[in-house]
Amino acid sequence: MGVIGYGYWGPNIVRNFNSLDDVKVVTVCDKNEKAAEAVTKIYPDIQICSDSNAVTESADIDIIAVVTPVSTHFELATEALKNGKHVFVEKPFTATVAEAEELINLAEQKNLKLMVDHTFLFTGAVMKIKEIVDKGDLGEIYYYDSTRVNLGLFQHDVNVIWDLAPHDFSIMNYVVKDTPVAVSVCGKSHVYEHENIAYISVYFNTNMIAHFNVNWLSPVKIRNTLIGGEKKMLVWDDINPDEKVKIYDKGIEVKNRESIYNLLVSYRSGDVWVPKVEQTEALKLESRYFIDCINDGTVPINDGHAGMEVVRLLEACNKSVKNSGELVKL
Amino acid sequence: MGVIGYGYWGPNIVRNFNSLDDVKVVTVCDKNEKAAEAVTKIYPDIQICSDSNAVTESADIDIIAVVTPVSTHFELATEALKNGKHVFVEKPFTATVAEAEELINLAEQKNLKLMVDHTFLFTGAVMKIKEIVDKGDLGEIYYYDSTRVNLGLFQHDVNVIWDLAPHDFSIMNYVVKDTPVAVSVCGKSHVYEHENIAYISVYFNTNMIAHFNVNWLSPVKIRNTLIGGEKKMLVWDDINPDEKVKIYDKGIEVKNRESIYNLLVSYRSGDVWVPKVEQTEALKLESRYFIDCINDGTVPINDGHAGMEVVRLLEACNKSVKNSGELVKL
Amino acid sequence: MGVIGYGYWGPNIVRNFNSLDDVKVVTVCDKNEKAAEAVTKIYPDIQICSDSNAVTESADIDIIAVVTPVSTHFELATEALKNGKHVFVEKPFTATVAEAEELINLAEQKNLKLMVDHTFLFTGAVMKIKEIVDKGDLGEIYYYDSTRVNLGLFQHDVNVIWDLAPHDFSIMNYVVKDTPVAVSVCGKSHVYEHENIAYISVYFNTNMIAHFNVNWLSPVKIRNTLIGGEKKMLVWDDINPDEKVKIYDKGIEVKNRESIYNLLVSYRSGDVWVPKVEQTEALKLESRYFIDCINDGTVPINDGHAGMEVVRLLEACNKSVKNSGELVKL
Amino acid sequence: MGVIGYGYWGPNIVRNFNSLDDVKVVTVCDKNEKAAEAVTKIYPDIQICSDSNAVTESADIDIIAVVTPVSTHFELATEALKNGKHVFVEKPFTATVAEAEELINLAEQKNLKLMVDHTFLFTGAVMKIKEIVDKGDLGEIYYYDSTRVNLGLFQHDVNVIWDLAPHDFSIMNYVVKDTPVAVSVCGKSHVYEHENIAYISVYFNTNMIAHFNVNWLSPVKIRNTLIGGEKKMLVWDDINPDEKVKIYDKGIEVKNRESIYNLLVSYRSGDVWVPKVEQTEALKLESRYFIDCINDGTVPINDGHAGMEVVRLLEACNKSVKNSGELVKL
Repeated sequence: MGVIGYGYWGPNIVRNFNSLDDVKVVTVCDKNEKAAEAVTKIYPDIQICSDSNAVTESADIDIIAVVTPVSTHFELATEALKNGKHVFVEKPFTATVAEAEELINLAEQKNLKLMVDHTFLFTGAVMKIKEIVDKGDLGEIYYYDSTRVNLGLFQHDVNVIWDLAPHDFSIMNYVVKDTPVAVSVCGKSHVYEHENIAYISVYFNTNMIAHFNVNWLSPVKIRNTLIGGEKKMLVWDDINPDEKVKIYDKGIEVKNRESIYNLLVSYRSGDVWVPKVEQTEALKLESRYFIDCINDGTVPINDGHAGMEVVRLLEACNKSVKNSGELVKL
Repeated sequence: MGVIGYGYWGPNIVRNFNSLDDVKVVTVCDKNEKAAEAVTKIYPDIQICSDSNAVTESADIDIIAVVTPVSTHFELATEALKNGKHVFVEKPFTATVAEAEELINLAEQKNLKLMVDHTFLFTGAVMKIKEIVDKGDLGEIYYYDSTRVNLGLFQHDVNVIWDLAPHDFSIMNYVVKDTPVAVSVCGKSHVYEHENIAYISVYFNTNMIAHFNVNWLSPVKIRNTLIGGEKKMLVWDDINPDEKVKIYDKGIEVKNRESIYNLLVSYRSGDVWVPKVEQTEALKLESRYFIDCINDGTVPINDGHAGMEVVRLLEACNKSVKNSGELVKL
Repeated sequence: MGVIGYGYWGPNIVRNFNSLDDVKVVTVCDKNEKAAEAVTKIYPDIQICSDSNAVTESADIDIIAVVTPVSTHFELATEALKNGKHVFVEKPFTATVAEAEELINLAEQKNLKLMVDHTFLFTGAVMKIKEIVDKGDLGEIYYYDSTRVNLGLFQHDVNVIWDLAPHDFSIMNYVVKDTPVAVSVCGKSHVYEHENIAYISVYFNTNMIAHFNVNWLSPVKIRNTLIGGEKKMLVWDDINPDEKVKIYDKGIEVKNRESIYNLLVSYRSGDVWVPKVEQTEALKLESRYFIDCINDGTVPINDGHAGMEVVRLLEACNKSVKNSGELVKL
Repeated sequence: MGVIGYGYWGPNIVRNFNSLDDVKVVTVCDKNEKAAEAVTKIYPDIQICSDSNAVTESADIDIIAVVTPVSTHFELATEALKNGKHVFVEKPFTATVAEAEELINLAEQKNLKLMVDHTFLFTGAVMKIKEIVDKGDLGEIYYYDSTRVNLGLFQHDVNVIWDLAPHDFSIMNYVVKDTPVAVSVCGKSHVYEHENIAYISVYFNTNMIAHFNVNWLSPVKIRNTLIGGEKKMLVWDDINPDEKVKIYDKGIEVKNRESIYNLLVSYRSGDVWVPKVEQTEALKLESRYFIDCINDGTVPINDGHAGMEVVRLLEACNKSVKNSGELVKL
C-alpha cells in the first residue's frame, strides 16, 4: 500500500492500515520534508518520496490512499485507478460532482474498489444510531438537526461547509433513507473570503427536514445531533465520553384530528435509554473493512456513490450561500 | 388596573402588578369560568367579568394589561387606548405590522404609554449581556446564534415561530445595534397545519449574521445563545441555574492579510468569566418599570416600536417559511 | 387540622394539607406577627394564634402538624397526643432518642398516628430507587455514598449534621435493609460553635458501608448519591432536572478466587437506563398518605420508629464528632 | 538514563525522558518478555535487559527511573543510589516511612538527587491552584475535599488508598501549608482482602480539615476537589476538558459575634472566574524539571521528603482502616 499525503490525517491512515496483518505500507509520499522525517522516525522501513508518480506507478503497490487537499483528489485518484490500484480517498471525495462521476466510472471499468474516508460511519455511536433507526425504534423520521461548532482551524482552500459538513452529510445519508432534494444556506465570512459560519437547511420530498449548524468561531465545542422521530427521539452528544447516544421515549400523541379547533396533542414522556457503544477506533474498523471489501468484492457503504452524494450537497451549499440562501435543487 | 385574559401567563401578570405598592388590580376579565374561580380563590377582592368592555370602559381603571391570544390584541388594545388607558400587551405585540403601527399612532395621539411584554429584557442574564455588549467587551458582533427547543405545547393559533422566536427577536434587537434587513426560514409541520420546527436565518447590512433554531418536538430542553464577537465571545445557557452567562476570552487573530496564501490565523484562548446575574423575577422588575415609565414619562425600552420590530420579523418569517426559505426583505 | 410553626417550611405544610379535599386547616400558630400576617394574606379564613395551647387543646382540631425547631418537638407533640390529636412532626423527629421513645409510646397508648416529615421518601426519585433496590436489580448492596453540600443557611440551634443528614439517613434506612451498627464522624466548625462541615461514616454488620458528606460552606450545590451493588450501580443526581436516577449495568466479575495472586477481576460495562420518575410534589403525596394512614389504620413508612432511628444516628454522630471521629456504637 | 519497569506507566517515562535534548535512555529493564518487545518496536536502539543489576551497575547510566511495584522501590533505589545514580521513583515512594528515611539519608550522603513521581504537581491545574492559594486569594483554608472514584483496576498488591490517595496527598501537601496531625479512615473490601473503597479524614492543628473519597467500584468517574477558604472557594474538576479550575467569589460574612442568638451570617455570592490552565503534558514538564534540578542543584518540590510525607499518611491510613476508623496520630 502507498499513502499520498502525510499532513494532519495521514499519520492516522498509515498507523491504522499498517497495523493490519495483511497490509504493508511500503511508501509514503509528501512534498514536505518534515513529513518525510516524521515518517522515518516512527517507521524506519517505510520508503519516502515527494513525487506522487513514484506511488501511483509502483509495481509493489496494490492500494493507494489519497490524503491530500480536496483539489488534488481527482488527479491523484485518476492516476491511481489508471495504474490499477484500489483507492481510498480522503473526504470530501472530490471538488465537483463531475469529478466524482468520472472516478466512479473509471473504477467500475477497471473493476477496482473506491472508498471515501467517511470515518464517522465506523464510530460506535453512528453504528448504534444506524441500528436503532433501521429497527424502526424512532418511527418515521421528522428531523435531523446537527450542531458542529468550535474554535476551528481556518482552512485556506475551503470554507467551513466543506470542512465540517461532510461529516454530517455522510452520516445523515447513511442513517436516514430519505433523499435530499434541495438546500438553502445562510453563511458569512468574517476573516477572509471563505465562510467561517454557515446554517444549512436541507429539504426532502418526505416529511423530513434537516439542518446543519457549522461554525469555526464558536468559543465552545459542540457536537450535538438530534434525530426526532414519530415514536422516539435520539440525541447524540459526541463530546460526552460516556453517554454519547440517548434514546428518549418522548413524543406527542395526536388524539383528535377532526379539526384544529379540537385538536388534542398530548405529550408522552418515558424512560431514557443509553446504549453502550463500541469504543474501537473508527479508522481501525474502516481500514479493516476496506481490505475486506477488496478481498470479498463487497460494495462499501462508503463507496464512490456515497462520496458523490456528499459532494452534491456541498456543491449546492456553495451555490446557495453565495446567493443569500437561494433554494438550490439537487 | 384591569387585566384581560387569565390563562397561562395572566396569573403572573396579576400577581406581580398587584404586589406593587401603588397599583391595585381591580378587575380581571376572562370568558372561562374556571379562570374566574381561580382568581377569586386567591384574590377574593378582585372583581371578575367576562366582557372586556367592563374593563376597557371602567372609570376605575387607568391601566389595562392585555394577556390574550395575539389575534385579539389589536382590538382590545385599541378599545383600551380609545378609553384613555395605558396598555401593557402580551408578546407578540400584534398579528401584523399594520396593526402595530396603528396602535403606536393611537397611543401617541392620546399621550398614553404602550408597553409590550418582552419579559426576557428584564432577566438578570439579558441585563448583564446588554451591559457587556454596550461596554464593547465583545468588539464588533459577528454572529448571534440561538437555540430554543423542547417538547413544547402545541399552540392552536400560531406556529412555533410566533410562539418561541419573539423572545429571541426582542432580545437580539435590544442587545445588538445592527438592523435586520432580510430573513430566510426553513420549517416544517409534522402534526397539523402550523410549523412545529423552524430554522430562521437573519441577514444584516453589516458583518453580522443571526440564526434561530426553534422546535416544539425536541426531547431535550435547550436554551442556548452564542454571541460571537471580534474580541470576545459570550455563551448564555438559560437552563444552567448558576452559571447562565459566560464570557470567553477566546478568538482569532489574523496576523497577515496580504494574501490568503500566507494568511496566518492564530487562536487566542484565555480565561473565562462568569458574572453574577441578578436573580429577581423579571416580571416583577418589568411591572415596576412600566408604572415608573407612566409616572415619569420615560419611553420604555419595550415600547410599541420594539414590539413592532419583532412583529415585522415574524411576518417576514411566515412569508419565507411558506415559500421554502425564500429571502424576504424587511 | 392545626399547624404550629409558620417559618420556612410551615407554608408548604399548610398549602398541601389544605388542598386535600377532606382536610381543613383551621388554625395556624406562630409567635411571629409577620407569620400571622402572611397566613391571613393568603388564607383569610384560617384562624391565627400565638399560643400553641389554642391549637393542642382545640376541640375543632383532630390533627396537628408541628413545624417548629427540633428542641420544641417533644413538648408540643406530647401536648398534642395527650389531647388526642394525630401528630405530624417535622424532621428531625426529636432532640434525643429518649424523647422519641416516649412519644412513640404515648401515641401507641392513645392509638394515635405519629408521622415524621421525611419528605424525601415521597419524591419520585426515592420511590423509584426503593422499587429498583427491592426488585434486587442491584444485587447485594456494597455502599451508599451521599454528598449533600452547598452554601447553606447557618442554623442557630443545630449543626450541619442535624440540618442536612436527616434527609439522607431517612432515605438510606428506607431503601436499604441493612442496619447501621456504628458511626465515625469527622467535622469542623469554622464560624461558630456548631459544625458546618462533616464527614459521616456508617458501619454495618454486613458487607455494606455508608458515607455522608454534608457541608454548609460549599461554593457549588451537589446532591449526589451513589449506591453500589454487586450486580448494578445507581446514581441519583437530585440537581439534574430530567435525569435524576441512572442505573448502570456496570460492575466487576471475579473470575478466579483461588488465591489473590491469580485473581482475575474483569469489568463489565453495559447500557445505562434512566427511568422516568414521578414529578408530583412529594409533600402533596405525603400529606395525602398521612390522612389515608389515619383513616385506614396503616402504619406509615415514616412513623415514629423511622424518625427515632434517624435521631439515633444523629445522636451518635454528635458524640463522635466531638471526640475526633471516635467510633460510636448504636 | 536507565528505566526499570515497563508496565502501565513505564512507556510514558521512557517517551518523555527520551524526548529531552540532553537525555538518552540507554537501557530498559523488565522481566516480562512482551515489555521488551514493545520497547524494541518503538525504540530499536534502546537496550533491553531483565536483570536490574545491568542497569544499576552500568557505567553508561547516570540516572535511573524506578517504575516498578511499590514493594520493590526500596531495594532498587538503594542499589541505584549506592552505585552513584540519581533516582526518579514512581509514587508511592516506598512501602514504609522507615524505608523512605533510609533512601533520603543515602541520597544526601551520596549527594544525589532523589525525586518522587508526583506527576500531578506538574499539571496546569495544580500549578494554577498553587499560584492562587499562594497569592492568598482564598484566604485562610477551611477545608480540602477530594473525590477520586471510578470503575478502577483492582491492584493485587495494594488497596485503593495506596493506589489513588497518593495523588491527592501529594497535591494537598504541596498546595496547603498546614501540616496533617492525624487520620481516621473508614473502608471496606468487597472483592478480596484489599479495601476497594475508603473514606479518609485528615485532622490538622489549624482550622483546616481534609477528606478523601477513593473508590474502585464507582459506575461514574469523578475527579473533583473543593478547596474552601475564608474569602473565596475553588473547585477543580479534572474531568472537565475546558474548565478545570473555577474560583468562586462566594462565602459567608459573620456580621455579629456577640452571642450565637443574635449571630448574623450573611452570604456573599459574586462572579466566578475560570483561569486558563497550561495544557502541556505534566510528565514532560516533570522530566525536564528533574534534569534541571540535577544540573543546577535545586531541591525538587517532589523530593524524598515530599514522598515520605505521603507514605506517612498512607501508613497511618492503613492502620486506621484496619481498626474501624481509629484516630491514628502522625
